[in-house]
Amino acid sequence: MAGNSFGNLFKITTFGESHGVALGVVIDGVPPNLSLTEDDIQKELNRRMPGQSKVTTQRKENDSCQILSGVFEGKTSGTPLTIVVFNQDQRSKDYSNIKDIFRPGHADLGFFAKYGIRDYRGGGRSSGRETLARVAAGAVAKKILKEYYNISIVAYTKGVGGIESDEFVEDFIEENIVRSASPAKAKLMEDLIIDVAQDGDSIGGLVECRIRNLMAGVGNEVFDKLDAELAKAMLSIGGVKGIEFGDGFNVRCMRGSLNNDPMRDGKMLSNHAGGILGGHSTGAEVIFRLPIKPTPSISLKQETCDVENNNVICEVKGRHDPCLCPRVVVVVEAMAAITVLDQILFLNSLKLK
Amino acid sequence: MAGNSFGNLFKITTFGESHGVALGVVIDGVPPNLSLTEDDIQKELNRRMPGQSKVTTQRKENDSCQILSGVFEGKTSGTPLTIVVFNQDQRSKDYSNIKDIFRPGHADLGFFAKYGIRDYRGGGRSSGRETLARVAAGAVAKKILKEYYNISIVAYTKGVGGIESDEFVEDFIEENIVRSASPAKAKLMEDLIIDVAQDGDSIGGLVECRIRNLMAGVGNEVFDKLDAELAKAMLSIGGVKGIEFGDGFNVRCMRGSLNNDPMRDGKMLSNHAGGILGGHSTGAEVIFRLPIKPTPSISLKQETCDVENNNVICEVKGRHDPCLCPRVVVVVEAMAAITVLDQILFLNSLKLK
Amino acid sequence: MAGNSFGNLFKITTFGESHGVALGVVIDGVPPNLSLTEDDIQKELNRRMPGQSKVTTQRKENDSCQILSGVFEGKTSGTPLTIVVFNQDQRSKDYSNIKDIFRPGHADLGFFAKYGIRDYRGGGRSSGRETLARVAAGAVAKKILKEYYNISIVAYTKGVGGIESDEFVEDFIEENIVRSASPAKAKLMEDLIIDVAQDGDSIGGLVECRIRNLMAGVGNEVFDKLDAELAKAMLSIGGVKGIEFGDGFNVRCMRGSLNNDPMRDGKMLSNHAGGILGGHSTGAEVIFRLPIKPTPSISLKQETCDVENNNVICEVKGRHDPCLCPRVVVVVEAMAAITVLDQILFLNSLKLK
Amino acid sequence: MAGNSFGNLFKITTFGESHGVALGVVIDGVPPNLSLTEDDIQKELNRRMPGQSKVTTQRKENDSCQILSGVFEGKTSGTPLTIVVFNQDQRSKDYSNIKDIFRPGHADLGFFAKYGIRDYRGGGRSSGRETLARVAAGAVAKKILKEYYNISIVAYTKGVGGIESDEFVEDFIEENIVRSASPAKAKLMEDLIIDVAQDGDSIGGLVECRIRNLMAGVGNEVFDKLDAELAKAMLSIGGVKGIEFGDGFNVRCMRGSLNNDPMRDGKMLSNHAGGILGGHSTGAEVIFRLPIKPTPSISLKQETCDVENNNVICEVKGRHDPCLCPRVVVVVEAMAAITVLDQILFLNSLKLK
Repeated sequence: MAGNSFGNLFKITTFGESHGVALGVVIDGVPPNLSLTEDDIQKELNRRMPGQSKVTTQRKENDSCQILSGVFEGKTSGTPLTIVVFNQDQRSKDYSNIKDIFRPGHADLGFFAKYGIRDYRGGGRSSGRETLARVAAGAVAKKILKEYYNISIVAYTKGVGGIESDEFVEDFIEENIVRSASPAKAKLMEDLIIDVAQDGDSIGGLVECRIRNLMAGVGNEVFDKLDAELAKAMLSIGGVKGIEFGDGFNVRCMRGSLNNDPMRDGKMLSNHAGGILGGHSTGAEVIFRLPIKPTPSISLKQETCDVENNNVICEVKGRHDPCLCPRVVVVVEAMAAITVLDQILFLNSLKLK
Repeated sequence: MAGNSFGNLFKITTFGESHGVALGVVIDGVPPNLSLTEDDIQKELNRRMPGQSKVTTQRKENDSCQILSGVFEGKTSGTPLTIVVFNQDQRSKDYSNIKDIFRPGHADLGFFAKYGIRDYRGGGRSSGRETLARVAAGAVAKKILKEYYNISIVAYTKGVGGIESDEFVEDFIEENIVRSASPAKAKLMEDLIIDVAQDGDSIGGLVECRIRNLMAGVGNEVFDKLDAELAKAMLSIGGVKGIEFGDGFNVRCMRGSLNNDPMRDGKMLSNHAGGILGGHSTGAEVIFRLPIKPTPSISLKQETCDVENNNVICEVKGRHDPCLCPRVVVVVEAMAAITVLDQILFLNSLKLK
Repeated sequence: MAGNSFGNLFKITTFGESHGVALGVVIDGVPPNLSLTEDDIQKELNRRMPGQSKVTTQRKENDSCQILSGVFEGKTSGTPLTIVVFNQDQRSKDYSNIKDIFRPGHADLGFFAKYGIRDYRGGGRSSGRETLARVAAGAVAKKILKEYYNISIVAYTKGVGGIESDEFVEDFIEENIVRSASPAKAKLMEDLIIDVAQDGDSIGGLVECRIRNLMAGVGNEVFDKLDAELAKAMLSIGGVKGIEFGDGFNVRCMRGSLNNDPMRDGKMLSNHAGGILGGHSTGAEVIFRLPIKPTPSISLKQETCDVENNNVICEVKGRHDPCLCPRVVVVVEAMAAITVLDQILFLNSLKLK
Repeated sequence: MAGNSFGNLFKITTFGESHGVALGVVIDGVPPNLSLTEDDIQKELNRRMPGQSKVTTQRKENDSCQILSGVFEGKTSGTPLTIVVFNQDQRSKDYSNIKDIFRPGHADLGFFAKYGIRDYRGGGRSSGRETLARVAAGAVAKKILKEYYNISIVAYTKGVGGIESDEFVEDFIEENIVRSASPAKAKLMEDLIIDVAQDGDSIGGLVECRIRNLMAGVGNEVFDKLDAELAKAMLSIGGVKGIEFGDGFNVRCMRGSLNNDPMRDGKMLSNHAGGILGGHSTGAEVIFRLPIKPTPSISLKQETCDVENNNVICEVKGRHDPCLCPRVVVVVEAMAAITVLDQILFLNSLKLK
């Protein structure tokens, strides 16, 4: 309700603020007897880590995770799995210039309206830094999906600015700093990001996610449809302004005879639906795309107001990601994994002996 | 979990199948002492009713609602509000030609994979007919939002096929059978729908929804972001293949300096964000758009399989909506109202005396 | 939250008021493909029915149930199972003498304080009549427990007034109108109830419940302990003023060396714990007892106040159960079954393939 | 579901094992802008601390708490409040003698049956040490209840072994190591505990809890009755084998004319009900009692089995509380506070502007 938990059976609760003592996650509902080490989690955290390349923020933070509970002698024990990352530098830096200001494009205004509080320390709870806790939980979910169901989830940067490509070379994704799947376009995307950054500005992009080997029948027929749950999971990531499955927004121009996926020999001959029909997976690859807004923190001067509605000029200092895509793909994979695993556990619950 | 409930404090549970005895909804968490009659609900149900015009299915059903509980002497009593609509013709018609067939574009395949059941009676629980229960609940939410908070919600058909318009004449929406807001384009949309129907085919469209007078600060900062909840609510409606807020998918080409909404004198000077930042409402109008897929039920012949994976030709008989938009806008408004009210009740809970 | 739902995976939501149109229950999470008819439910409702004997209220109501959804061709379909009982006589009788009065021992005062409403029609939502919806849901749970896990649940009247017995002849329970398990004492209990009724008064009692063949390991180690869930389930039944498991209140005088149950050859040699240790079932019979308060509705004159705090004399007319036990045992079994099944479904969810 | 969370709006999730790295709690739904320091929490933790007197375990642990998130500049920020206590000595001691043994009276058997795991380190997640996390959360709830609603909650040791008293001198409770409210009997209780401990045995007791100044109307009319929620809260505490409200088990011998509480001038003239009727508070003091079983860990030899069902003799070494009561009263107060606050927040949610 208060909105810091996600999932029902594989249920995560994240906590912590950007410049507080620590961030972390409690996962309730982890099946027992799974091998799990901090390395399993750290390798995903490293993919999300700031300072990893010249197209991400240059801040250097060593997001080193620690398992506080839930693992006994190298295996999950069925009890709450708690993973925590202590903030190395929790001193509130000099935020005096933005202390009472609503930074354009940020959560400051709504958070203040709701709570009457302005946690100026890098956004506090609304900071993108919160997503490291999701990535930690997602690492556990991805491991279970892979080992027990052979389900794999991959997200990548499909576009930056207007540069997009349908090329999909999966092995290339982790080989380039943009996390593009297109050897032909990756360098263009990288150059655009660097160019924009030099202007003190930021740029939006497009992320695509694919879920493979998901058996048919995962999901629900009414409210907790698989696509509905994925939509909530994705829109809960800062900077994501929408989602579309399969043909997505293009269906608004299509006829049924074209959009319906015919079947032959038990297989779908096309995948306009993006792997989900009526809220359940069809057995085809689940595909969805997310528009990622340009990072709101830019160093250009912007008009805004402070908490007393005085007009002020905002200059956001510090170094920020000029494009969110390269790091957000890791969060997308994590949230997709958590969503899918939660639904699979529900299906298991219906299996009477 | 099983997916037939939505909301936390204003919580709805819908039940019933397309050709079962009845469909209905139980609403738990209705504040007490609100005036409420069956007329309040019926008028919204009538907007969703089949057979209302030549661009909707020609089936005539009289969806007459009955309040079974929760209202005492004309006022809500704080106890579960149950609204039910009995199906007038619950005899299973002759479905022999599709009994074991997976209709393309329908939920049949996933539902069968999940439960091992093929409820061939018009889709059973997966039928769009389930949404009448949501509309009934939405009527209650809309009434509370309007009377207590002056919040209004309006959705309309922004596009049919490729025909779209930015014209927005609100009063016109209920004056035309397409529920377009564009006097200039409504007739074109209508003609396109009729043309497609005559071909035995169907057509997709685009629906936009606007939420007015929503105070700033409604929502949550992490998982239950207002946009995340709305995304889940909308994607849980059959035929909706995506969602975008504000500038939506266009942000993928935008720079931060353009996408950020500057403020002056306590007001935002633009609304690229679509009324939501960091998961909370900003006080600006909330705007989102939904691509609606073409109705999967078409009378053209289609290749598909049956439950034993034999190849068959599917011909869906009966009369179906050639375009979902004119009726789906009513469901969109209902789900938006339920989502927003639920979040407002949560904010109330935090107000200690 | 609003308190009309119980359970997580096998989740029931009851609705309806004592003198409203109907009462009923929606069960979400019913596993698919189980044979189920209205007869399965009706036979349990008949056990709870008023007017069944001279020790229950003499009102004659024919609580005939109808399945509104969730069963298709004689089997559950995995969709919400809705069962409804229409009230035959929903006219508000002449309640003028108690309309604004807080009946002693009743929910009237708290309900009014909470909602500002006095639903004088036989208690409205707070009426014991609500429990018929639980019994309907419990009938489904009991059937699943019996058929799939061979678990049986039996409750009975262990005491009335001061008359109690440790005799336990299970087959005798449904053979006597008190639902006592003691052939030696049943007639004494019956006579006491009739005597008290003739005085215009009522009498309390003691109910015991036993759950057999429950495998070890059902439950949770922290908050959702099996005994904690059963305690909530039982205290949610009107008139139940406490609960004790195994040796119960007697443990307050016991030493650990006596209270601990030793084991030999994989079996417990005693069952002081009542079948639950650390929140999980031990494999031994689960045993708990419930003190049932005397029916608050008595025809003797009582001092009380009205909603404006005027002092008044209350005379509750009509015919009421002089002792709640004979009918409450059916509700106890139902709630126990729902609780246990819900926990078993959770264990299933943890079983990865 | 997995059972490590409690509450709906003021929702706590505890984590950690007895001999793991740390134990702690995440509280979601803490209203913002409340003053809160670690001292507020520590003072309640100190009351629960082991080694505090000669009638508790002699282990010395310094349960020092740290707030990881949710407090900003000395006030709650509306974000998840995380409190953690690091275990000072997390080395697994020499448990070789009980490693594979089911200790009589302990959770070992059920936990093993459920998960196939034997966390022999002092009980792991099932250890009473988990309750420190509840006490930490309860400290926050108690503070809010006191400051905003003037509600106070006091629990005390009403009996040890057969020694009980109706004397209630509240100020005396924290003045004696048994936490008795009876100056006349406290020393007798203390002597009994010490005597039993010298025998290598343990002893049960009785705890009573009183909630003062609770306004009428808190609770729910069906499943989430105030007494039902309190029952679950209390039975979720290890060692609690039952609960009774007001006259409790004595109602089984009472007539309605005696058990009903008459009213005059808007006040109840007696409190047989224990402050709750029909699931809502009546405005009278809420009173309930809990039988506490003798500590299962005793140094006497006991017959039991190991995980392979071999018969073994169990000797539990180490120093344990000979009577749970003196420390469990602190946990009882904490769980009562959390339960009551959660219900009050729900009532707030219904208050439309």
